[in-house]
Amino acid sequence: MKVAVIMGSKSDYPVLEKTIQTLKAFGVEVEARVMSAHRTPELAAQFADNAEKNGIEVIIAAAGKAAHLAGVLAGHTILPVIGLPIKSSTMDGMDSLLSTVQMPGGIPVATVAINGGENAAILAVQILSLKYGELKEKLRQFKQDMLEKVLKDDASLQEEVAK
Amino acid sequence: MKVAVIMGSKSDYPVLEKTIQTLKAFGVEVEARVMSAHRTPELAAQFADNAEKNGIEVIIAAAGKAAHLAGVLAGHTILPVIGLPIKSSTMDGMDSLLSTVQMPGGIPVATVAINGGENAAILAVQILSLKYGELKEKLRQFKQDMLEKVLKDDASLQEEVAK
Amino acid sequence: MKVAVIMGSKSDYPVLEKTIQTLKAFGVEVEARVMSAHRTPELAAQFADNAEKNGIEVIIAAAGKAAHLAGVLAGHTILPVIGLPIKSSTMDGMDSLLSTVQMPGGIPVATVAINGGENAAILAVQILSLKYGELKEKLRQFKQDMLEKVLKDDASLQEEVAK
Amino acid sequence: MKVAVIMGSKSDYPVLEKTIQTLKAFGVEVEARVMSAHRTPELAAQFADNAEKNGIEVIIAAAGKAAHLAGVLAGHTILPVIGLPIKSSTMDGMDSLLSTVQMPGGIPVATVAINGGENAAILAVQILSLKYGELKEKLRQFKQDMLEKVLKDDASLQEEVAK
Amino acid sequence: MKVAVIMGSKSDYPVLEKTIQTLKAFGVEVEARVMSAHRTPELAAQFADNAEKNGIEVIIAAAGKAAHLAGVLAGHTILPVIGLPIKSSTMDGMDSLLSTVQMPGGIPVATVAINGGENAAILAVQILSLKYGELKEKLRQFKQDMLEKVLKDDASLQEEVAK
Amino acid sequence: MKVAVIMGSKSDYPVLEKTIQTLKAFGVEVEARVMSAHRTPELAAQFADNAEKNGIEVIIAAAGKAAHLAGVLAGHTILPVIGLPIKSSTMDGMDSLLSTVQMPGGIPVATVAINGGENAAILAVQILSLKYGELKEKLRQFKQDMLEKVLKDDASLQEEVAK
Amino acid sequence: MKVAVIMGSKSDYPVLEKTIQTLKAFGVEVEARVMSAHRTPELAAQFADNAEKNGIEVIIAAAGKAAHLAGVLAGHTILPVIGLPIKSSTMDGMDSLLSTVQMPGGIPVATVAINGGENAAILAVQILSLKYGELKEKLRQFKQDMLEKVLKDDASLQEEVAK
Amino acid sequence: MKVAVIMGSKSDYPVLEKTIQTLKAFGVEVEARVMSAHRTPELAAQFADNAEKNGIEVIIAAAGKAAHLAGVLAGHTILPVIGLPIKSSTMDGMDSLLSTVQMPGGIPVATVAINGGENAAILAVQILSLKYGELKEKLRQFKQDMLEKVLKDDASLQEEVAK
Repeated sequence: MKVAVIMGSKSDYPVLEKTIQTLKAFGVEVEARVMSAHRTPELAAQFADNAEKNGIEVIIAAAGKAAHLAGVLAGHTILPVIGLPIKSSTMDGMDSLLSTVQMPGGIPVATVAINGGENAAILAVQILSLKYGELKEKLRQFKQDMLEKVLKDDASLQEEVAK
Repeated sequence: MKVAVIMGSKSDYPVLEKTIQTLKAFGVEVEARVMSAHRTPELAAQFADNAEKNGIEVIIAAAGKAAHLAGVLAGHTILPVIGLPIKSSTMDGMDSLLSTVQMPGGIPVATVAINGGENAAILAVQILSLKYGELKEKLRQFKQDMLEKVLKDDASLQEEVAK
Repeated sequence: MKVAVIMGSKSDYPVLEKTIQTLKAFGVEVEARVMSAHRTPELAAQFADNAEKNGIEVIIAAAGKAAHLAGVLAGHTILPVIGLPIKSSTMDGMDSLLSTVQMPGGIPVATVAINGGENAAILAVQILSLKYGELKEKLRQFKQDMLEKVLKDDASLQEEVAK
Repeated sequence: MKVAVIMGSKSDYPVLEKTIQTLKAFGVEVEARVMSAHRTPELAAQFADNAEKNGIEVIIAAAGKAAHLAGVLAGHTILPVIGLPIKSSTMDGMDSLLSTVQMPGGIPVATVAINGGENAAILAVQILSLKYGELKEKLRQFKQDMLEKVLKDDASLQEEVAK
Repeated sequence: MKVAVIMGSKSDYPVLEKTIQTLKAFGVEVEARVMSAHRTPELAAQFADNAEKNGIEVIIAAAGKAAHLAGVLAGHTILPVIGLPIKSSTMDGMDSLLSTVQMPGGIPVATVAINGGENAAILAVQILSLKYGELKEKLRQFKQDMLEKVLKDDASLQEEVAK
Repeated sequence: MKVAVIMGSKSDYPVLEKTIQTLKAFGVEVEARVMSAHRTPELAAQFADNAEKNGIEVIIAAAGKAAHLAGVLAGHTILPVIGLPIKSSTMDGMDSLLSTVQMPGGIPVATVAINGGENAAILAVQILSLKYGELKEKLRQFKQDMLEKVLKDDASLQEEVAK
Repeated sequence: MKVAVIMGSKSDYPVLEKTIQTLKAFGVEVEARVMSAHRTPELAAQFADNAEKNGIEVIIAAAGKAAHLAGVLAGHTILPVIGLPIKSSTMDGMDSLLSTVQMPGGIPVATVAINGGENAAILAVQILSLKYGELKEKLRQFKQDMLEKVLKDDASLQEEVAK
Repeated sequence: MKVAVIMGSKSDYPVLEKTIQTLKAFGVEVEARVMSAHRTPELAAQFADNAEKNGIEVIIAAAGKAAHLAGVLAGHTILPVIGLPIKSSTMDGMDSLLSTVQMPGGIPVATVAINGGENAAILAVQILSLKYGELKEKLRQFKQDMLEKVLKDDASLQEEVAK
């Protein structure tokens, strides 16, 4: 089980850190790379062309501004590509979101929320779980943990408000 | 190989028709349903709770305006959920897009372009292809057909412009 | 007189604190809860299904990003549901606002301003006042206090500018 | 049970027609008026000042562009005011929505979706139902009818797709 | 020569301070007031109704969020009303701008830039200068001063860059 | 009393026709011109430089897209300049509005609603009325006519709804 | 003098037709091609890699939605790349504009207006004119023709209005 | 080889500094100026009218808010004009971007990203390189340096993640 986590610039790493940690917590092997659709186009093309044969099963691509990375990788592979729009210094991430999600017919990018580093990982795990049944139990546990976290927050809120 | 195609309202069908046709063309079984996060909440919850055990492997959920359907289904399942924002009579689909894609941590929705009916299907097939190797060849053929369509358009354009 | 104040995440509490205080100041009983349309969907559904019989008369639901909470609760009850869009770290609250207000036909959410914690409370009190006449006088007093606050500000400004 | 339905211009009537019909279908008396925050400010002020004593229990105010009507009426009454933003010839209703919903602290407007004529009525009925218990049953029936409509659409879709 | 400078809330004063200073620098008498379209509607109405007879010749109205103040005053007077949209804690002033500028036919508000405190004053002076010729010379001087400021900045930049 | 009505392109005329008619109805002389900040910059500069001495007292400038016309004219004159943003084939007029209203400090443009042809005229008349008292009566009459139109619409609506 | 005019889809041709005609009118050789950053990525890469040596001096790239074409080509060449955002069926061209213009540091795309087919051509000619002096005279003539067109429109408008 | 770098206000200098440094690093002579379309319109007009004969070959114009500078200069010259939208204190640069890029037919502005100071310079160098072949090698080197920077970041990321 291997997921590639590609970022358009090393400055996107703070958002991707959560992605990588989450994938590892699910026991998924991560290949983390910096690669740019504009600055290293051949590298990006080769990477995507060979991803499948290199054992990668899902690609997560994160970029900001005119975020072409996910779309460009998707043009070079039949693997599912998850797009993670990064909020940049202007436009509040709207440019990244639209550049990532509004893909033309035939070349989808599975887009998650702006700066949604954790969700990109969870989506990758859900996709992998179709093939790797052992992930299903972990996903159910993850969902259960979230539920319990909310219940605990709920209990503690009720206490606070009662005071 | 079974994909559920859920629409929030039957009026979304024109966009979903392409989704269903594309899935069928790839030999994927389709369960097409009308179901609403707001008008039939129990039905939607039960459907998502039981989707996995009913043999569904990917859920495509399409809705417009405050498009909660994909997110609500995702709350009830660990299957990958693809969100397809539908353009409604106001807001040019921006409301549907943001309601679908901006999911909180832990519950991703794999969002495709506004009215991107075909892309929702292709993404589902890409996800299934991890497990069902036979889809890989079909996806490669699909990519090849797109490429040839562009080359043909390119040739015909060059002719036209040369006139 | 009981109002439920539901937040999608405990991190929304700073905005809701004003809501709870305002309701209490009007003598309205508050049931404050953390509950998520996505992380605790059954809990949310049960809560809304039973709200009416548990003596709740108005529900205030606050959430950020793809804010489905108010809409989902509204799908499960005939009580009036007030939606309070929370500004999140991106999009300046526009995603929350559109996800909350753009509800499809038949399932309204009474939406107030982004981060409008006080207004959610006042609206709940106005609604309750139809039945509980004693609130009418308090609302008139509240309006009068606001007016006097403005008059005082007006007087103090005129002094300052005259200097 | 009386609801005032105020529109800023007679050209908003096509959206409000549904509001009025829905209210009447619930057995609610409707006072429908054209009144403008800018062109007939005294009339609007007097109307809102006297609404309560004239037996009105909820006000629905619809306007487009810089939609001040709902907010202005809310400044003159303690009754709940429902704001219905009307889509105008430019801005796709975004101007009306923001002008209606982004009310300052202390003066809420219960805003529904852009052009959401039916929802304005349903929200008014939900509010009235706190006091008038007979409306509760009708609301439950309305919800049930919507549910059945979706189930019927669901069945007919499944048939169509099966063909 | 008298201009009223009305703000919807005393918290808008930091933006208005520049307005008041600029007007005074041109020798224009200023009546600065806090007044709210929603919290003190009668006061606002009376103020605008009587503005003309109280010697006011131009009204500047500043407000944030659903900024109804300028429009409401304009509904009560035939004096030119200048609208100054204030940037609030969300929406970057877009709500204030659209609420101020998108006025319906017949009731214009002369809108200046978001937080454009100085420009509101200059526009008022330009309007007054039609009647009070002595302001024309001052406006020409103001324009000349701006020009000289730019020329000085230009010279100093050229020096810096040459280094 | 003379107002210049400048449009950036003859295709803007349908919006400006109402402006010109309204000004004439108030007895204001109109100089209507096509002039472009980009295609005829010298003409525009000369026009604005000489407007004052040619007896013009207010300038109305209408343009679409990157609407620089009003701002450029304002740079060349101390007369009040009214900016009328024209909705073009994309962006719903948002580009025109922001290009017109967001003027830097010192050079205001009095901006009216997108395609607000009538309002540009009324604002010009309000400005002129400071100097030309005879316009005040006409403005009061205009306001009265609008009021009566609303009252008539109100009466006819009440009739219709009563049916 | 050769300019490549690349469109992401043949459906963009109606906008590009004006581009091609304008370039030809200036005596510039045009290589018009359909090529997609996503459907024919190798072709696009090769084209851009070889553009310089094939005698192309400026590239115009037009695409809609998540418009990656111009940026991708710019990643493969040091030639100036002009980006022409195409308005698609949703988002009014905003997605295309942001995807085209918001390029990361080091890889500019010279972006023109949404659907600005003529402007893409004129910009290409301006760029070429640095090297090919004969184009300068033609550009001056083009500017003169525009000016005369405006003057004629101005004259005809004055006549019409005078009637 | 001379490029003019014009800023609308000296406060834009922090963004332009990178532009000037980049141009100088490529051996391009820079004429840096502060000039305003509104505050020094004659200066701006004269500058653009004479730019060509003063040996300037490309103009970079940077401005914020209602950013007319690039468009106004483009109206006065046949040289290519690069527009650099500056993010101001409100609107996140959207006003500057639309004011710069949405130019009417015939007068293009080659727009780069909001605050894209480096990209404005690189685009200017790309344009100059058509005529000055020696710049081509430097551009290739610049591209190579960017590529190597990414490769280094990629290597260092892989190390970090492996830890």
